[in-house]
Amino acid sequence: MARLPPAVARLRAAVRHGLADLPEGSLMLVACSGGPDSLALADTVAFCAPRMGLRAGLVSVDHGLQEGSAARAADVAAWAREAGLDPAAAVTVAVGADGGPEGAAREARYAALDAAAERYGADAILLGHTRDDQAETVLLALVRGAGPRGIAGMRAVRGRYRRPLLGIARDDTHLACADRGLEPWADPHNADPRFLRSALRPVLDSLVGVLGEDLVANLARTAALVGEDTDYLDALALAALDECRAVSGPDPEGAGVGPDREGVGVGLGTKPDVGGLGAEPMAAGLSAGRTAGLDAKRVAALPTPIRTRALRAWVLDSGVNGAELNHRHLAAVDALVADWRGQGPAFLPGGIEIRRSDGRLTASAP
Amino acid sequence: MARLPPAVARLRAAVRHGLADLPEGSLMLVACSGGPDSLALADTVAFCAPRMGLRAGLVSVDHGLQEGSAARAADVAAWAREAGLDPAAAVTVAVGADGGPEGAAREARYAALDAAAERYGADAILLGHTRDDQAETVLLALVRGAGPRGIAGMRAVRGRYRRPLLGIARDDTHLACADRGLEPWADPHNADPRFLRSALRPVLDSLVGVLGEDLVANLARTAALVGEDTDYLDALALAALDECRAVSGPDPEGAGVGPDREGVGVGLGTKPDVGGLGAEPMAAGLSAGRTAGLDAKRVAALPTPIRTRALRAWVLDSGVNGAELNHRHLAAVDALVADWRGQGPAFLPGGIEIRRSDGRLTASAP
Repeated sequence: MARLPPAVARLRAAVRHGLADLPEGSLMLVACSGGPDSLALADTVAFCAPRMGLRAGLVSVDHGLQEGSAARAADVAAWAREAGLDPAAAVTVAVGADGGPEGAAREARYAALDAAAERYGADAILLGHTRDDQAETVLLALVRGAGPRGIAGMRAVRGRYRRPLLGIARDDTHLACADRGLEPWADPHNADPRFLRSALRPVLDSLVGVLGEDLVANLARTAALVGEDTDYLDALALAALDECRAVSGPDPEGAGVGPDREGVGVGLGTKPDVGGLGAEPMAAGLSAGRTAGLDAKRVAALPTPIRTRALRAWVLDSGVNGAELNHRHLAAVDALVADWRGQGPAFLPGGIEIRRSDGRLTASAP
Repeated sequence: MARLPPAVARLRAAVRHGLADLPEGSLMLVACSGGPDSLALADTVAFCAPRMGLRAGLVSVDHGLQEGSAARAADVAAWAREAGLDPAAAVTVAVGADGGPEGAAREARYAALDAAAERYGADAILLGHTRDDQAETVLLALVRGAGPRGIAGMRAVRGRYRRPLLGIARDDTHLACADRGLEPWADPHNADPRFLRSALRPVLDSLVGVLGEDLVANLARTAALVGEDTDYLDALALAALDECRAVSGPDPEGAGVGPDREGVGVGLGTKPDVGGLGAEPMAAGLSAGRTAGLDAKRVAALPTPIRTRALRAWVLDSGVNGAELNHRHLAAVDALVADWRGQGPAFLPGGIEIRRSDGRLTASAP
């Protein structure tokens, strides 16, 4: 009996590990472009799913940005049906003009995948990002100044999305395709220097030249560590935020902080539910707090990493678009509590203003 | 009157800001190689110190690694005396063979600077690292997989060491030298590709080419944010560690964890003294805890970012050399609490073994 090729074995182990906690009978959809990473993932999932008591389908998204993309999406879906993946669908999406070609395509892709998950009742959507993608993401976040949240990179599990190959080298997906007789499609965008990520690849290659092959794994490991840190701090910040909501009605500057109300500070006595932290932690149920605003002195008493995160979560909850929120906006909001000199409001994207008066931070309606 | 050159003005503002909290009459020593960064720093400090009620001297360290280095150190000290810096000393250090040429030179330099601070009764030692040095440090840490602690980069203040130029571009120190008629020395090591940091410079330059000039400032800003996060988590971990110390005497597996002893968990109810966290947080006074070891189940109940930091601090306190401790060592120690399957001890540098028995983690003597 022929020995299983090592790359195929590594992919299967990664997929088994990454899906082990899904309940029996769960339906997963592999998001597949036809490129080597997602094709190798789809092929591996088609093999592993029935052996794990799981159901697996495939969605191939056509962005309509390239010649022949519709035909390719249909080809991928046809291959998937033969491979035993069900459902096997090609979906076309309209790409908006916001956020540059990369950002717009990404947003449209996730919207289409979410819609497909709803339509088919899927429990999980599987993405083919590899360790190399993670290294590029982290490096890009670092040099863009995206902060700890950015350096944390892509998460292995985030809501219904899973990336079982995040610990697998890109070389392995290419090898696995060859081993399994698959013919992946080579995305010309991957070599197009107009795309920032493509422009970064030769730089990453020269870093590998200077520092050795370990750096891709190192970058990915660092991302995982920073991700754990920042998720935990986010959870602490949400717990602290709840204790900083101002009671409704006017609260004259300083009057709300007495010895019997100083329990917030750095105490953080509540138990944050780190595991339950989703992608939109502040989504609903906060309209009362939104109206009453935040007690500025309580917020000011929080340690910096907690304070800045609590303010960011509160600002997002006030209706600011996270993609448009940059560090200068957040610094202006933070100054209202950490460097209060009676200054005017902080102006945020979407025309939202955060102001401090009577010891309270309030956000104007969007 | 001639307008102050902008680079000189920026350096003076940074030095004033970075030294503002030193008590009047404090003595600072500038560590100066004669290179543009530290020479510009020494010149700026010579100007600012008397105007701030501070005293400033200079130490020029000769590593003896290059031809003419002793003469250069003497020249720098002579210049410093003329510039009004007092004391102005050249010190020679013997460089050990450990940790490669960069690591050995760094260790010897810090030992010599510490000795000089003791000899002259200095309150602070000032280092000339710039924003560009910080970017290189962070990038290097990232690609080496140094984790959040590494990405945090160099700190503006750490113990008696201060880096007032950490927000200043390297170009500004070169400009300031030219503006002030100083003739800095060009370290040939800076262009020697045998030194990892030198090899990294062209890579950073090509990153700037792809991503723009902002990236150096972005890297430095990210470092500062991650530094705040990891300092705060370190402080929480030390507080948690204290609550995980096992009582002395045997503690049969499981018997120590009852309803009345579960207060540690993720509660973290104590107020960590973040500001007081020094470079060697676990230095002394813990010998009782060291003997009794840690309560494994209490440690296991901590959230991952706190648990791993608490274990690292405890291992360092047990006598392991931090420079030799890598992520594989720590993973083996962590597995004794987070993935306990009755396995044998974790083997750490210096022949130290960490083992679990009777529900307790203990470290063998070094």
